[in-house]
Amino acid sequence: MGKIVYKPIGIIHSDYKQKEGVPIQGALSKNSRGKVEVFPEYQPGLKDIEGFSHIILLYHFHLSEAYSLLTKTFLDDEEHGIFACRAPRRPNPIGISVVKLKKIVGNTLYITEADIIDGTPLLDIKPYVSKFDVRTNTKDGWLTERLKDNEKHRSDNRFS
Amino acid sequence: MGKIVYKPIGIIHSDYKQKEGVPIQGALSKNSRGKVEVFPEYQPGLKDIEGFSHIILLYHFHLSEAYSLLTKTFLDDEEHGIFACRAPRRPNPIGISVVKLKKIVGNTLYITEADIIDGTPLLDIKPYVSKFDVRTNTKDGWLTERLKDNEKHRSDNRFS
Repeated sequence: MGKIVYKPIGIIHSDYKQKEGVPIQGALSKNSRGKVEVFPEYQPGLKDIEGFSHIILLYHFHLSEAYSLLTKTFLDDEEHGIFACRAPRRPNPIGISVVKLKKIVGNTLYITEADIIDGTPLLDIKPYVSKFDVRTNTKDGWLTERLKDNEKHRSDNRFS
Repeated sequence: MGKIVYKPIGIIHSDYKQKEGVPIQGALSKNSRGKVEVFPEYQPGLKDIEGFSHIILLYHFHLSEAYSLLTKTFLDDEEHGIFACRAPRRPNPIGISVVKLKKIVGNTLYITEADIIDGTPLLDIKPYVSKFDVRTNTKDGWLTERLKDNEKHRSDNRFS
């Protein structure tokens, strides 16, 4: 199978200027603000997005230079498979975040619950749809215990 | 900003051999079965994934040859912005699906709730984590009314 080539459709702006200190997940950091700048040529694709309270951002982990199939995360000191965690150093370093859409001005989306480093290239935006995306009674594997005191968690420099 | 190059890490197998008849979302088709074949070189990355009841698949809409910023979906006859819907003809044709993980044999994941065409190139697997991914009290925009009789919906040939 050949290579797949994508092109950024925008840039994500946030207060997180470096890897350290980024919330490990936006859902755990309700007040983190950010802006999604969609390049003007894609602005028509935003039609009707204002009706959604939450959106899914897909983006490129541009600071991730290599990958590890086994990795330690910010949540414990065990090694887990990269596909069993959300860490950035993945074979294809695509990140996804569910964020809250506060308002839209032109080609800029104002969001909260953002856990994304400033300057991150945006790949796609999808509406978060409760009937498609909510699963209840899930089993959350090795994360179950680790997330009990999750509000405290911020990234450190271990992926630098 | 430059191009971003990814490489498939596996292939998704399903009973859907063509675009017509695929469930529009796996959550609406609980019994759709599929298999995710992870290429052997990435198999170590699956460590600890068996503890999760649901996983998120990211994949390349390989049959999507062009994009439209405004599009009609299977759910109504209005045009919506591509970023306000989940249709495949996107600037970067990346699909995401939350699926149920039933079992793992070697490098193959057996899944249900699959809404993906047979032969689709796999880009990434992430664990679905309720604390990260569940949002309640969402507003689902133009989809709110359209999803009320959603169990009936299957794709047709409008994107062919």
